[in-house]
Amino acid sequence: MDLKQKRLSSDYKYKGKILNLRVDQAEMPDGQTVEREVVEHHGGVGIAMEDNEGKFFLVTQYRYAQEKVMIEFPAGKMEMHEDPLVTAKREIAEETGYAGKDFMYLGQMVPTGAYDTEVIHMYYARMGEYTGQKLDSDEFLNVSRMTLREIMDACIDMTIDDGKTLAMIFLISQMKERGLLK
Amino acid sequence: MDLKQKRLSSDYKYKGKILNLRVDQAEMPDGQTVEREVVEHHGGVGIAMEDNEGKFFLVTQYRYAQEKVMIEFPAGKMEMHEDPLVTAKREIAEETGYAGKDFMYLGQMVPTGAYDTEVIHMYYARMGEYTGQKLDSDEFLNVSRMTLREIMDACIDMTIDDGKTLAMIFLISQMKERGLLK
Repeated sequence: MDLKQKRLSSDYKYKGKILNLRVDQAEMPDGQTVEREVVEHHGGVGIAMEDNEGKFFLVTQYRYAQEKVMIEFPAGKMEMHEDPLVTAKREIAEETGYAGKDFMYLGQMVPTGAYDTEVIHMYYARMGEYTGQKLDSDEFLNVSRMTLREIMDACIDMTIDDGKTLAMIFLISQMKERGLLK
Repeated sequence: MDLKQKRLSSDYKYKGKILNLRVDQAEMPDGQTVEREVVEHHGGVGIAMEDNEGKFFLVTQYRYAQEKVMIEFPAGKMEMHEDPLVTAKREIAEETGYAGKDFMYLGQMVPTGAYDTEVIHMYYARMGEYTGQKLDSDEFLNVSRMTLREIMDACIDMTIDDGKTLAMIFLISQMKERGLLK
């Protein structure tokens, strides 16, 4: 079956700082026209940075929309048309205070593809030199470090439920097991 | 550091079929007031259903916001205040044509917690009896089956990049390895 859905028109309901919202008319594979609500977001990056003792940096922060504190790999939003590796290098240093090095692309992850354009680019890096933390004025977070196994355990017992962190720990553990990451 | 951010007021910019959008004034830990854009979504479920030969059901569908065809575990939106297990049982049968049985809760996954209230509840199930596919009028998808290893390989080579599918295959493979799932 041909699955493609064709955008016929778009009506912007909101244009904001980090996202826009539009309502489209779209043509389905059978020819009918339906309404599609779409959140537009520039996308982001997630970075799993490993120190020299095999521990990974994590950030603990209040996630406003979820109304709770969450433990996650460091992450950040891309500026429009920004190369995700540039975002990754900036965000890891700003959030943890350490530059990353030997960046390796793990792949992309679509958080909620039905109605959101966001794509998260995922990187592995090794810990580089100390550069000092530089947080945005509305950013409050605590930094900690955990081993791969401790993070995997925290995902299974649901202490960690952030989507990109689950996806990244899966890819890293698999790539280490398969010798694709040493 | 106390990380909590307090909601002071909300201004709804859009109320729609599957999501709402509001812009809040929020008080930060240091007392300053900032604007927060929040997408409200009821949440959803994902179901990894294994047949008697160790193969899992997957659906291939066009994801409108992503403008591409994606391979994912079957999933669906919760009605307001619906028990996620009820959603899971309905969606797996409607999308694949087979009822699930022996449902096991894998945990919840937050797709994009910075600005979206959505939570995805993840289930493992075994294949039950044939009930026939019942798709919504605007739902077009193809069903296939793959082994756990084939799905893991497809995640590593990025054929699969759906967030919940990555999270679920991680949890299932880990729980099988640890004897928590047979």
